[in-house]
Amino acid sequence: MMKDSSMIVPTLEDMYGARERIAPHVHVTPVLTSSYLDDLTGAQLFFKCENFQKAAAFKVRGACNAVFGLSDDDAAKGVATHSSGNHALSLSYAAGRRGIPCHVVMPRTAPQAKKDAVIGYGGSITECEPSTSSREATFEKVQAETGADFVHPYNDPRVIAGQATCSAELMEQVDRLDAVIAPIGGGGMISGTCLTLSNLAPDVQIYAAEPEQADDAARSFRAGHIIADDAPQTVADGLKVPLKDLTWHFVSNHVTDILTASEQEIIDAMRLIWLRMKIVMEPSSAVPLACILKNPDLFRDKRVGVIVTGGNVDLGKLPWMEG
Amino acid sequence: MMKDSSMIVPTLEDMYGARERIAPHVHVTPVLTSSYLDDLTGAQLFFKCENFQKAAAFKVRGACNAVFGLSDDDAAKGVATHSSGNHALSLSYAAGRRGIPCHVVMPRTAPQAKKDAVIGYGGSITECEPSTSSREATFEKVQAETGADFVHPYNDPRVIAGQATCSAELMEQVDRLDAVIAPIGGGGMISGTCLTLSNLAPDVQIYAAEPEQADDAARSFRAGHIIADDAPQTVADGLKVPLKDLTWHFVSNHVTDILTASEQEIIDAMRLIWLRMKIVMEPSSAVPLACILKNPDLFRDKRVGVIVTGGNVDLGKLPWMEG
Repeated sequence: MMKDSSMIVPTLEDMYGARERIAPHVHVTPVLTSSYLDDLTGAQLFFKCENFQKAAAFKVRGACNAVFGLSDDDAAKGVATHSSGNHALSLSYAAGRRGIPCHVVMPRTAPQAKKDAVIGYGGSITECEPSTSSREATFEKVQAETGADFVHPYNDPRVIAGQATCSAELMEQVDRLDAVIAPIGGGGMISGTCLTLSNLAPDVQIYAAEPEQADDAARSFRAGHIIADDAPQTVADGLKVPLKDLTWHFVSNHVTDILTASEQEIIDAMRLIWLRMKIVMEPSSAVPLACILKNPDLFRDKRVGVIVTGGNVDLGKLPWMEG
Repeated sequence: MMKDSSMIVPTLEDMYGARERIAPHVHVTPVLTSSYLDDLTGAQLFFKCENFQKAAAFKVRGACNAVFGLSDDDAAKGVATHSSGNHALSLSYAAGRRGIPCHVVMPRTAPQAKKDAVIGYGGSITECEPSTSSREATFEKVQAETGADFVHPYNDPRVIAGQATCSAELMEQVDRLDAVIAPIGGGGMISGTCLTLSNLAPDVQIYAAEPEQADDAARSFRAGHIIADDAPQTVADGLKVPLKDLTWHFVSNHVTDILTASEQEIIDAMRLIWLRMKIVMEPSSAVPLACILKNPDLFRDKRVGVIVTGGNVDLGKLPWMEG
């Protein structure tokens, strides 16, 4: 990893290292296509299905890279994190595979399916209020009590190097991509995508997709510095967290643009994917298609990789059934 | 096809012919596995995902074989059928690909998603009451008016030869299967499975899975002759129709056993597959897993092909959300 005055920026070598380290613990996920959605958008869409990943989320890549990179002594003290959901259960999964403790701070409003999954993988949960400030305060207390290694959900070079393996796979699975689009919350997946593509395929455009109601990354991108919101509200519950210095480094240097979609556009896109592709994916994963449908001229006639980030959704409470 | 005094029984050659004929119009569907469900059942399950098929149903195989096997003169008059759903939209899809009319008689209670899909593919619908008798009476009228070629949803040698291509693919995708299990309604998929496996892999056990509340095939199997119910009620809406002479031929000669599951067991299995495999499939497709979970001793330590027959479900009305 490249040493910086204030932070460690992961390199392509770190991505290759991660790929080897995590291979026994994660799936090479399939890429699905839909002739219906291609007709609808005028683009060729290649859906990289991380909803079929272990723990049903790409975040297991970064979590496994962090957990399996620890020395035995450090590992023995366990790992800890705060997360709106998928990182929590991914880290629990990774810790479970290594047989070490995992302490998770989660907002009490997180989907029950995600809480159940964390516990199912052997993690232990401390609940906080659904705001960034409450989350960070609660976490500090937990970490002080346990001495566990903090694996940040995205602002961690080990995590970004792990997420970067996803687009490395995608490039091997699909020839001649013109663009890749992924959801952006804290920016871990987008940063990993930037890490891989800026080195291996610098001509591929990188779009980030964000809910209008949690558009702090889009506003940061236009302002030229990080803007953080406390507790934004969106159906895309994985995308409420703000950028941090390390993800800002990648976003500000390598992202082509950040697009946004409304709550209704996200829900409509989610339902369309379920209906037409017959896959279960969470609201956050629908934001890219919502943005493609909203900006057809940007994507027409292009070969576009679409990262389907996860499949952890409360089946008893689907967004098109509310209200 | 082998000529019989009363019916034409499709042969392995017909299956090979179908495979070539339909190849441009259908997908080779993927086979998915789940380590969670393997642990839960003690078996190795290989899910043949016909929910990812064109028209989201295996029935497009038989429908395409019938439609694309017609002479140009016969094709010009169009095709007609009655169906509880997936055959209707599959035949509409096939007719649309060939550019010929498709007339469909459907129960008025069929899921709205299936009606919408028929119309979306260019088929025209005449509604009937949700009973076998009303369906057949209404259909006679439609056929007399149009002169279209009748493609029965299952009791048709062209249809069975088409469905038989599914297990031919499965055998190429998975080595050394011990058993295959598929839902049974009218028996088209099971008959196709029997046709292929009895010829190419006669040691593979063939299980049919049926709702307890529509268990006419299981009762027929034990009685040694066809027993038909009029209008049984089950959440597995694709499985309400009775066996006919041609499917009875295959079922009575080649099926190992017919297992049944309750409504709650079917709904629980469906939810489990959505939750763990992240795929959208319809209630009928959950009956095999429900039967495996209910009869663990039959399947333990076996390599089992599980036919996921379709993915057409009303996303606004999922069975675990009712009541």
